[in-house]
Amino acid sequence: MTEAENAPDDILDRPIRDEDGAIDAGLVEQVSQAVLLSDLTTLRAIVADMHEADLGALLEALDADERPRLISLLGTDFDFTALTEVDDSIREEILEELSAETVAEGVRDLDTDDAVYILEDMEEADKQEVLGKLSPAERIALQQGLDYPEESAGRRMQSEVVAVPPFWTVGHTIDYLRDTADVPDRFFEIFVADPAHHFVGTVRLDRLLRTKRPVPISELVEEDRRVVKATEDIEDVARMFQRYNLVAAPVIDDAGRLVGVLTIDDIVDVIEEAADDDVKQLGGVHADEELSDPVPAIAKSRFSWLFVNLVTSFLAAAVMSLFEEQLSKLVALAILAPIVASQGGNAATQTMTVAVRALATQELGAWNLRRFFTREMIVGLINGVGFAVITGIVAAIWFGSSGLGIVIGIAMIVTLISAAAAGVLIPLALDRFDVDPAIASGTFVTTVTDVVGFFAFLGIATLWLGLA
Amino acid sequence: MTEAENAPDDILDRPIRDEDGAIDAGLVEQVSQAVLLSDLTTLRAIVADMHEADLGALLEALDADERPRLISLLGTDFDFTALTEVDDSIREEILEELSAETVAEGVRDLDTDDAVYILEDMEEADKQEVLGKLSPAERIALQQGLDYPEESAGRRMQSEVVAVPPFWTVGHTIDYLRDTADVPDRFFEIFVADPAHHFVGTVRLDRLLRTKRPVPISELVEEDRRVVKATEDIEDVARMFQRYNLVAAPVIDDAGRLVGVLTIDDIVDVIEEAADDDVKQLGGVHADEELSDPVPAIAKSRFSWLFVNLVTSFLAAAVMSLFEEQLSKLVALAILAPIVASQGGNAATQTMTVAVRALATQELGAWNLRRFFTREMIVGLINGVGFAVITGIVAAIWFGSSGLGIVIGIAMIVTLISAAAAGVLIPLALDRFDVDPAIASGTFVTTVTDVVGFFAFLGIATLWLGLA
Repeated sequence: MTEAENAPDDILDRPIRDEDGAIDAGLVEQVSQAVLLSDLTTLRAIVADMHEADLGALLEALDADERPRLISLLGTDFDFTALTEVDDSIREEILEELSAETVAEGVRDLDTDDAVYILEDMEEADKQEVLGKLSPAERIALQQGLDYPEESAGRRMQSEVVAVPPFWTVGHTIDYLRDTADVPDRFFEIFVADPAHHFVGTVRLDRLLRTKRPVPISELVEEDRRVVKATEDIEDVARMFQRYNLVAAPVIDDAGRLVGVLTIDDIVDVIEEAADDDVKQLGGVHADEELSDPVPAIAKSRFSWLFVNLVTSFLAAAVMSLFEEQLSKLVALAILAPIVASQGGNAATQTMTVAVRALATQELGAWNLRRFFTREMIVGLINGVGFAVITGIVAAIWFGSSGLGIVIGIAMIVTLISAAAAGVLIPLALDRFDVDPAIASGTFVTTVTDVVGFFAFLGIATLWLGLA
Repeated sequence: MTEAENAPDDILDRPIRDEDGAIDAGLVEQVSQAVLLSDLTTLRAIVADMHEADLGALLEALDADERPRLISLLGTDFDFTALTEVDDSIREEILEELSAETVAEGVRDLDTDDAVYILEDMEEADKQEVLGKLSPAERIALQQGLDYPEESAGRRMQSEVVAVPPFWTVGHTIDYLRDTADVPDRFFEIFVADPAHHFVGTVRLDRLLRTKRPVPISELVEEDRRVVKATEDIEDVARMFQRYNLVAAPVIDDAGRLVGVLTIDDIVDVIEEAADDDVKQLGGVHADEELSDPVPAIAKSRFSWLFVNLVTSFLAAAVMSLFEEQLSKLVALAILAPIVASQGGNAATQTMTVAVRALATQELGAWNLRRFFTREMIVGLINGVGFAVITGIVAAIWFGSSGLGIVIGIAMIVTLISAAAAGVLIPLALDRFDVDPAIASGTFVTTVTDVVGFFAFLGIATLWLGLA
């Protein structure tokens, strides 16, 4: 690397991300070098203008020991918000290495939602040490957020809100906003609360801007129908944001007092995470698995799911072993049986995928359940007949036995109809028992199709081909 | 149903959705009755205060013939925005039934993004008929959006923006907003453009509110680094919104002129849809499949995917048939082979799921590819050994043959390592060739694991157990 390449001017011209959206490899290399050499000039020049999301991605791309070094070197020049943008395991690793002073200094100026996000997974003792270094007001605000349950609206809310009493005028409010330094960095709505902090309603900024100064705030208040309770589940809140196109929503406590605000940028992450969890769980991967997790953790969590699958495979094998005699008489049965089971498994996965997502997005309810079930059964029947014909003809020609063709055809129809039924009923039953259908459906569903597939094919073969 | 239940007062007290978030079945019944009886009083009372999202959900819950009737009955009391909230196939069905006058009347007052969304899938002739009934200004605004490619930012943007010249003052701008009726319903930022409409920058509403009247706008302008080109792919734009926590972004044309704005509420839908597409495609379901699609469409699209799977199943069966002699000599092989293939398939699916999502969310790039591949291979090896031991012991005991146990153990290790390799390399290769890895990975991956699983198990058995 030449000296010219290290000059600050040049650094700012570097693209931060490559065309795939990943952090630029050259930049990572440069930062890594600068950390090694404790080259503060270069580091400051690079991070000075960097968005927290890019800084987070940069952190992730560094080696594990370089991350806390970078943060310690930069001191207050490091924007701790970046820690909300990295994988959980990386954040935990970094926080363990940093001193309580550094963390306290770093979270001090953050919005409470970001500070809570950073602190929540720390060891209780470390967390208390950090909180102890903050001012009482800061500590109380953070402790309030941390006291709400995980995955609740209170845990994710920002407690800094702009709230004015209903008897103020538009002019008074605007003057207040102009003269007060202590308002959030960015806000979309002004909340109205009475002197006892009880939430009254919302005033949109664009309405405030468009109204004459003498008008009282009480005339602009919209009585929000979409108020969030601090104890509400954050995924339910996210669903509401998405459904009603909200940008922000007030959060109240059990006594109706305004305690914070939830904004769409936090909610977008919740929505993406919920969808991501579904994808992973349907693929047999634990929802918490992150790309940066260490090998032993991943091997262990994948193992448990594969173990369940192994048990069900042995169950299917046990079904096959009931027909040991027939299999040894006619080896074509052994060759064709997996085809039936595989078609059943894939057809069931299709139905199950649709059912699981429709349940997650609340598109499937009492009103359309019967319609959905009927439709899936008919689709199963149609495709069952289609594949019965194709598979039957191929099998008959391959093994020169029309009997075998008929047997596999009938088995295919039976299996695909069972697949449709299992694909609907198993996710629904799990949902009814409050088990997340995305986690467990796959195993149950393929067990059903394997068992039905083998049993139908080998059973019908035994009867039809006189192999008993 | 009693008369009292039909009274408007009572109607408004009804819950719109049940606790699962689905539209209330009683409400659907009531609306259905009112449509049948052309009871406008009841219908108006029900929809008067209803959010477009609820109205959309209500439409979906009605029977197909009741939907256009409801809209025609209500006339201008029906908020056409609700049509952006229903499944595509339902919207198309409804639009076919409505007259061009009704549609033109309905889209006239909508924001352009909603109007474009409703019109874009109509037959070209019908679309032109509707556009012909609008004023030239309205028509040009909509035509501009419709002319941008599908899935582009220009197609999804709203062309109504608040734009002021840089030489205005804060006071002038606020007065303009107060006195002009023709500004969008809701906005988060004010854009600054020069007299030739070239985009200059953005002023946030909260900054505008907090600044004294005589300050010129040019002092508040933030030169936006996140400007969207109208031709950009909307999923890339969504990724940017999510990464940088944006709420709105200006859209410019090739000449740098401000042509519209994209807001987070549209982007949230894009993010959810992208995740949803991944879920469906990984489950072997076409991304466009919607819950309301008719049976033939669904059967057909599912069939094509299952057909691909059938072909690969026959390929795996062909591998098995190479060992016909061995299978007939030792029927335990036929019973155990599917277990090896199934473990391989599931392990590969785990790896593939993680790879596909990491590619989709741009978490996997050149910088961590090797790390990811190595990790997956090690996980494959660890779990391969683990399942080799378990399966080997069970198989040895079950069939009373330690040789069989050793064979299935070795086959398990080989298969799980291949599964890890296939689970990483196949999605990556597809991505490199610009094929969406979510669509095709599953088929290729399970083909590899089936073939490897059967071949490894039966091949090793042939050599080890002397069955050749």
